[in-house]
Amino acid sequence: MITLNEIIEKSKRRGRGTIVISYAEELKVLEAAKRAKEEGLGELLIVGERETVPSCLQQVGIDPREVEIFEVSDLMEQRRKALELVRSEEADLFVDGKLIDRGLVQILQEEGFFRRKLLSYVSLFEGDGKLIMFTDTYMNSYPNVGEKIVILENAIELVQILGVEEPKVAVLSAIEVVNPSMRSTLDAAVLSKMGERGQFGRVLVEGPLAMDNATSAEAARIKGIANPVSGNADIYLLPDGETGFLLTQLLRLYGKRRMAGALMGTGVPIVPLLEWDDAESLFFSIALALLRS
Amino acid sequence: MITLNEIIEKSKRRGRGTIVISYAEELKVLEAAKRAKEEGLGELLIVGERETVPSCLQQVGIDPREVEIFEVSDLMEQRRKALELVRSEEADLFVDGKLIDRGLVQILQEEGFFRRKLLSYVSLFEGDGKLIMFTDTYMNSYPNVGEKIVILENAIELVQILGVEEPKVAVLSAIEVVNPSMRSTLDAAVLSKMGERGQFGRVLVEGPLAMDNATSAEAARIKGIANPVSGNADIYLLPDGETGFLLTQLLRLYGKRRMAGALMGTGVPIVPLLEWDDAESLFFSIALALLRS
Repeated sequence: MITLNEIIEKSKRRGRGTIVISYAEELKVLEAAKRAKEEGLGELLIVGERETVPSCLQQVGIDPREVEIFEVSDLMEQRRKALELVRSEEADLFVDGKLIDRGLVQILQEEGFFRRKLLSYVSLFEGDGKLIMFTDTYMNSYPNVGEKIVILENAIELVQILGVEEPKVAVLSAIEVVNPSMRSTLDAAVLSKMGERGQFGRVLVEGPLAMDNATSAEAARIKGIANPVSGNADIYLLPDGETGFLLTQLLRLYGKRRMAGALMGTGVPIVPLLEWDDAESLFFSIALALLRS
Repeated sequence: MITLNEIIEKSKRRGRGTIVISYAEELKVLEAAKRAKEEGLGELLIVGERETVPSCLQQVGIDPREVEIFEVSDLMEQRRKALELVRSEEADLFVDGKLIDRGLVQILQEEGFFRRKLLSYVSLFEGDGKLIMFTDTYMNSYPNVGEKIVILENAIELVQILGVEEPKVAVLSAIEVVNPSMRSTLDAAVLSKMGERGQFGRVLVEGPLAMDNATSAEAARIKGIANPVSGNADIYLLPDGETGFLLTQLLRLYGKRRMAGALMGTGVPIVPLLEWDDAESLFFSIALALLRS
C-alpha cells in the first residue's frame, strides 16, 4: 500500500477541496487544517462563534480575513450546519473539532449520513515503508459476525480508494485454529469462507490468524497454514473494538507510529477527532478523507 | 467408498462375532440376525423371557436349541444385561430389538457407554455403485456448531473404518454463499475452515454447499466454486437433524435405496432399531457394526 506522503501527493493532485470545520476552539484541528491549506489540499470554512473563532485562528497563525465563518453558537448545531454544507456541496469535507461522541453519531444517523448500517473506524499506521490498516478500532465494541462483514466492507472500500486492487485481509484471533468456544475464531472462519466465495469481490481473506502468523509468512509456514495473506496483509480485521482501541493506543503511545484514521460508513467524508489524534495525524486523516470526496 | 456387499465380505473376513439381541419379539431384528448367522458373521445370544423367545426364534426359522438365552423380563433390564455382556467381551455387538427411545440413550449415558459428548446417527445409502453417508440423520435435532464438530468426527471415524483414507466431506446448506442470517451457512464455513486447518486430520471439508453443487462438480464449476469435494463427497453433513430425518425417510420410501445405519459416539458397537429399518437394512447395519468391534 502507498505511504502517508503518497496519500498527500495524491490528495494534492485531486485539486483543492473545501474543508468545513466546527468547534474551532480545538487548536490541533486548526493546526491540521492550516497545514492542509498551506500544502494546497483545501480552503477552509468555519462554523462557530464570530466572537471567538478569529482569535483561535490567529493563535495557530491563520489570517481570519482569509476564512469564511458561519455564525452558529450551539455545538450540536455547528455540526449540523457543517454537515449541511457538505451535503449541499458547498464543502467537500467536514472536520469535527469536538471529540467524537454519541451526539455526532446521532446527528449522522438522524440526518441520513449513514450509508451502511453501521459506522466503523480504520486506523492506518506507517512502518517499514508501507501502510497497514487496522479495523474496527473505535466504533463497535463487540461486533457480531454480521457487523464484522460491514466493518470489513468499509475497510475494503478505503483500501481500494488507495489503489490496492486485490487487497489482502488478515482476520485476527488469539489463535489460528477454530475453537467453537472462541467466538472470534468462528467469525474469522466465516469471513474467510465469504472471501473464498467471492462475497467481498477481488479480496483475499484469511483467518483465523494469530498475530504472529498474520504478520509473518514464515510463522504461518511453520504452523502448517501457509497462505498468501500472512506477511502481506493490507487490512487487519480485529476480533473486537476493545482490542482495536487498545492496539491503536499502544501503537500511538509506545510505537510512535505516524498514523491516519478514517471514519467509514458515512455517505460523505467526515474527519472526527479521536483521543489519540494530534495535529499531524489529523492532517493525514484530512488528506485521506479528501480522496474520498 | 466400498459397497454394502463389500462390507459384508469384509465383515466375514474379520471372523464370526457374538451378537447379543434384546427384545426378541421384534421379528425383523431376528430375521436380520438369522441372516448374519447364516452368512457367517456371528453367533447369537438373546436376552429375554425364556417363555416367549423360543417361539419367536421358531417363527423366523432359527432353532432355539442353537441359541443361548439369558433370562431377563424387563425391557430396560434386557438392554442393561445385553450391554453388560458386550462390556465384559462375552459379546461383540448389541442389537436392540426395541425401537430407539430416550430410555436407551439414558442407559448408555448412565452406564458410561458415551465415548464422546454426544451420539449421532449415520445413514449410508447405496447407489451408482458406491455408498454415501448422511449425518446426523436421527439423534440431534438442532445441533450447534460445537455439536456438529462431534457429529462430523463420528462420521469420519466410520468412513475411515471402511478404508477411506482421505475422506471428502460436503457440508450442506440451502445455499452455497455465506449468509449471516442463515446459521447453517456459518456453521459450514466454520467446519470448512477447521478442515483447512487440519483439525479433522487428513479430511477434505467443503461448505457451505447447496445440494446441487455438493453432488455435481460441474454445478460447482458453473457457480464459480470449483473444489475437490463437489461430486466426490463420501460424507454429507446435514444442516440439522430434522433435514437428516426427512432426507433418510425420502430416500428410503421413494428412493428405494439399500441402506445401512450406524449409531456413532458409543464406546461399543450398538445397532438400534429405527423407524425406517427392515430386516435387510438391519442386516447391513449388523455387518457394518461388527467391523467396529
